[in-house]
Amino acid sequence: MDPVPVIGGTGALGFGLAARWARAGVPVVIGSRDAGRAQEAADRIEGEARGLENAEAARQGPIVFLTVPFRNQSENLTNLKEVLEPGQLLVDATVPLAAAVSGKATRMLGVPQGSAAQQAQEMAPDGVTVVSALHTVSAPVLNDLDAELDEDVLVCGDKRDDKRRVADVIAKIDGLRPVNAGLLETSRLVEGLTPLLISVNSRHKVHAGIKLTGLPEQLW
Amino acid sequence: MDPVPVIGGTGALGFGLAARWARAGVPVVIGSRDAGRAQEAADRIEGEARGLENAEAARQGPIVFLTVPFRNQSENLTNLKEVLEPGQLLVDATVPLAAAVSGKATRMLGVPQGSAAQQAQEMAPDGVTVVSALHTVSAPVLNDLDAELDEDVLVCGDKRDDKRRVADVIAKIDGLRPVNAGLLETSRLVEGLTPLLISVNSRHKVHAGIKLTGLPEQLW
Repeated sequence: MDPVPVIGGTGALGFGLAARWARAGVPVVIGSRDAGRAQEAADRIEGEARGLENAEAARQGPIVFLTVPFRNQSENLTNLKEVLEPGQLLVDATVPLAAAVSGKATRMLGVPQGSAAQQAQEMAPDGVTVVSALHTVSAPVLNDLDAELDEDVLVCGDKRDDKRRVADVIAKIDGLRPVNAGLLETSRLVEGLTPLLISVNSRHKVHAGIKLTGLPEQLW
Repeated sequence: MDPVPVIGGTGALGFGLAARWARAGVPVVIGSRDAGRAQEAADRIEGEARGLENAEAARQGPIVFLTVPFRNQSENLTNLKEVLEPGQLLVDATVPLAAAVSGKATRMLGVPQGSAAQQAQEMAPDGVTVVSALHTVSAPVLNDLDAELDEDVLVCGDKRDDKRRVADVIAKIDGLRPVNAGLLETSRLVEGLTPLLISVNSRHKVHAGIKLTGLPEQLW
């Protein structure tokens, strides 16, 4: 299987995903601004993991995951502009929490393009397609490798086949069920689930996830 | 138990809720613009159901459910202005789908107050508190009384006790689990779930609902 680069892979979400993939036998490449910190993180992962500077990491596989805070999304995309190549998929997990501008984590910013994912698409080089996913998976739960996952991942993108390819990678993690949630613009609604879950979490002292009911067995 | 008025109760969502409550032994009052149509709808319900003109219906119980399309929400609230009394709770289930202005049902309008629920609160008479809920429950599924429900209802409001009272009414319907989702402003994020589910439904030919994972047994 192709290696999976995780840009911002030293952060809680990216590292948790990488650790889960590596455990499932998927080779991962942790990207970080600092190659040393990336390698340090990779060393803590059981399985096939390398650590590289973000730009270098992004070259290592056809489906690149971007798991950085919204505050840094634009900067990261600028840095990847000369790196990503036509045909690569960029999976954006960014959520425009108002916390990015010292507001509340239970509120969402309005993004001029409609959503963080659409901002990513606008900034991505020609021929690189953005799919959005993984907004609702709790980083602490991912990082607790003993915790069993049992939840859905809503996947947005303009082409079904792109989403199916991303879904295949996500489904390598036990207990995550990828669901086709619609066009990339639908990411605006999906990104809103994160501040909503944060609101629920603070009230119930949990790390909630989301599941859709009534779906058929065969989703892709 | 107090009767439950459902304003717009001849519509698919309101009627489905009323039918489910009546079956559970909760007396319901169907409200409609037209008293005759309201009574006709009430006659089709098995259980204790009356039909009245909306304003009259709204006087029949302490917790009033508003289940009208966004296009009609403002008009209905104006009509209820002289009717609702301090201490009553108004449960708003309105979703500002772009379909209200001949846009897509998979898109949400920006509401100046932040959400349909906040618009309801702004328009409600002094002393009437708005709680929002029931945006994600499928009307066709509610109306198929043979269909078993097994999903969550996210409840937003500024006071926990108000939400608990509303949750008690919602929980009378088998298979619906009310969850405290946060302040009334959080309704903006919850209202976005409806166009999201419509997007999922169109792709999978289903009537999906939502469930949160990782919540404790005791929620209220």
